[in-house]
Amino acid sequence: MGSKQTSRREILKNGAALAGGLTLTSGAIAPALGQMPDHMAMGGSQNDYPMIMGSKELIEYGQRSHYVTSVRIMHPMGGRPSPDAFGKVFHLASPLQDSVGVVTPSSLHYVATTRGSYMPDIDPAKHTLTIHGLVDRPLTFTMEDLKRLPSVTRLHFIECAGNRHNGRQKTVQESHGMTSCAEWTGVLLSTLLKECGLKGNATWFVAEGSEEVKGASSMPIAKAMDDCLIAYGMNGEAVRPQNGFPLRLMVPGFEGIFNTKYLRRIKLVDRYYMNYNDFGHLQRDPKEAALSFQIGPKSVITRPSGGQQLPGRGFYEISGLAWSGGGAIRSVEVSTNGGRTWNRAEIKATPQRMAHTRFGYMWNWDGNEAEILSRCIDEIGQQQPTREQVAQYWNVPFERDYRVPGLDNSVMPWRIARDGSVTNGLA
Amino acid sequence: MGSKQTSRREILKNGAALAGGLTLTSGAIAPALGQMPDHMAMGGSQNDYPMIMGSKELIEYGQRSHYVTSVRIMHPMGGRPSPDAFGKVFHLASPLQDSVGVVTPSSLHYVATTRGSYMPDIDPAKHTLTIHGLVDRPLTFTMEDLKRLPSVTRLHFIECAGNRHNGRQKTVQESHGMTSCAEWTGVLLSTLLKECGLKGNATWFVAEGSEEVKGASSMPIAKAMDDCLIAYGMNGEAVRPQNGFPLRLMVPGFEGIFNTKYLRRIKLVDRYYMNYNDFGHLQRDPKEAALSFQIGPKSVITRPSGGQQLPGRGFYEISGLAWSGGGAIRSVEVSTNGGRTWNRAEIKATPQRMAHTRFGYMWNWDGNEAEILSRCIDEIGQQQPTREQVAQYWNVPFERDYRVPGLDNSVMPWRIARDGSVTNGLA
Repeated sequence: MGSKQTSRREILKNGAALAGGLTLTSGAIAPALGQMPDHMAMGGSQNDYPMIMGSKELIEYGQRSHYVTSVRIMHPMGGRPSPDAFGKVFHLASPLQDSVGVVTPSSLHYVATTRGSYMPDIDPAKHTLTIHGLVDRPLTFTMEDLKRLPSVTRLHFIECAGNRHNGRQKTVQESHGMTSCAEWTGVLLSTLLKECGLKGNATWFVAEGSEEVKGASSMPIAKAMDDCLIAYGMNGEAVRPQNGFPLRLMVPGFEGIFNTKYLRRIKLVDRYYMNYNDFGHLQRDPKEAALSFQIGPKSVITRPSGGQQLPGRGFYEISGLAWSGGGAIRSVEVSTNGGRTWNRAEIKATPQRMAHTRFGYMWNWDGNEAEILSRCIDEIGQQQPTREQVAQYWNVPFERDYRVPGLDNSVMPWRIARDGSVTNGLA
Repeated sequence: MGSKQTSRREILKNGAALAGGLTLTSGAIAPALGQMPDHMAMGGSQNDYPMIMGSKELIEYGQRSHYVTSVRIMHPMGGRPSPDAFGKVFHLASPLQDSVGVVTPSSLHYVATTRGSYMPDIDPAKHTLTIHGLVDRPLTFTMEDLKRLPSVTRLHFIECAGNRHNGRQKTVQESHGMTSCAEWTGVLLSTLLKECGLKGNATWFVAEGSEEVKGASSMPIAKAMDDCLIAYGMNGEAVRPQNGFPLRLMVPGFEGIFNTKYLRRIKLVDRYYMNYNDFGHLQRDPKEAALSFQIGPKSVITRPSGGQQLPGRGFYEISGLAWSGGGAIRSVEVSTNGGRTWNRAEIKATPQRMAHTRFGYMWNWDGNEAEILSRCIDEIGQQQPTREQVAQYWNVPFERDYRVPGLDNSVMPWRIARDGSVTNGLA
């Protein structure tokens, strides 16, 4: 740990620049050097204090420091059909390596669409949600209608089913960046369905967005009546355009694609309907297909992670995120010796259901090569699997960069070299 | 509740425009009208889908919809010295009337400074925090040092002591907008103090920021060892410049001015030190002065609130925020008849300590004049006072726009007229 000192000479030099600047630009009477009020002479130079709050834009709606350069990256998903004539496979991965806490800033929330890069630009005053099909009373709600109804606010992650790691990705953004967590506010879908009145044979529902291919998905009615949320709020303001403005269906714990953006219609039906979104969910038995919707227990170390550098031996907090579609995270363990032994990590706050949970483990690095991993268990007892177990489950060969047809929630290793550099432990 | 229909003619017209556009711009083979894939013909026109995700800036760091225009406003605080030669009294109030959930977006977080509008523009790679004074080992921490230490993540509000309402303010942004709530991440001050080793006579500490007048404040050591947080993270990313980038002292539940921004030094001392920030805390007994630091229990209805309009009789969720420096909110009550009777409101999630808590109460408005109010009780049993009680406490005359020397946490009424317009109930 270092220390800094500012010489008296430097302070005086900066002070002189300040006095001059004031004289030239504002015409104010500049105090002579040496007569400057103490609080200014000691505060630093004028150059340290540009008036960056002085613009109308920054008064109305602030921005981050220009020193903070963490950004999303384009993330072409592996194993998907290539871009078609009507758009592009479009995925933005969140910079998990820089994440702190559990909320993802809306500006850095991951974005996934297989429906082209065109985003609906919807006027909320004209947007409506219609619920129809097997109901007693089909109803159409305006945005203002929805805001009059009982609201709920919940922390929930979303994760793209294609958020999988292999031996080639260099950073945690590339390997795990297709998940984020936000505070969502809206109306429970069950509240709306009770208004409409469900018919007895309404066993599935299809949600449809305003995108070019509508983003329709079929989901079981039990999920609708449990915890689905018609969200108009995200992290304290309106849902962002890239996340479905003005209305997004939240299906907590289900794969990202079911969380229908630009939601405009929900149809109650009596069977599983095949839709554009159903690649990957082609199971003979609709109940099995439904079960595969749910994200398994998963965790990853975000710091230190691939591409980062430990400056030297000593104490580090190993920090990461854990989440599960099965509910709240019950516990997280961290290994610093490639999985030979495991240590209980600290959970950083009361875990929320289907939400990212921050964990930490204090580690004294001795300067030798090490491999660090995390694994979690959720509230219903599901344990995050090893890579071998996931390959076995999907019946694919266990190779360095194997590719599974569904979610890969296996344990992710990071390797730390003697020089402190961190790399993908599978490479 | 209305409904919308798109005529078949309109769909076909839009479809034709789309097909033509593709032919002209991309050279792709346009499907003849009538052969267009169903999912496009039904999706709407190309004009509805500008490619607004296509810029590098929006890929890297998203923005809100151009339809969302909620902004902070300049909020000249009453009863303060007028702008001096070195800066301006500078306060930005958060648009609570549009708030949802409990997290305030960082871009809309309130900002208060009496230290001029110049904001330090600090390079985090050069920023350090020094702890000195009555300690065994003075230590200086870089930002990287701090991120290696055990972290905590907590939801906390901040409120300016001058956040008071009177009979003239038209909106809740004007009357209560000097408070916000965010997810803060950092290191407990107690963790750092244990590294330094406190001397037995270290009973107070002074926190100093990098602003022109340093923003120094004295606080009791008991608070330092309890829950003070050296925060580098805010809502999942770095603390914003307007909120103290790169380091802010969080003093949960204490008046905003103690939450020192641009934190660079903490000195352990043996008595209360008088500083620039101590206007308003001039009490003879330092123990009494310390007690007055803590924000009292407070709540306000944010929707419907002044300036908003109810479209007609029927059900509305009355929604608002409650908070207290005394801990978590235990309960909130809402009155819809000017305080004659009170009803238990619903708390929207597990209340966090010293954090905004969202409440809601379903109300069936009969179309007659009404006055709606909220009041809360915190976990240590403190009850939000009436306006009369606050005036009595501060020993000021109880008048329409009375002004108290400290925090005014009294109950705020909104009046609803027959035409649905909402105004300040004190006017």
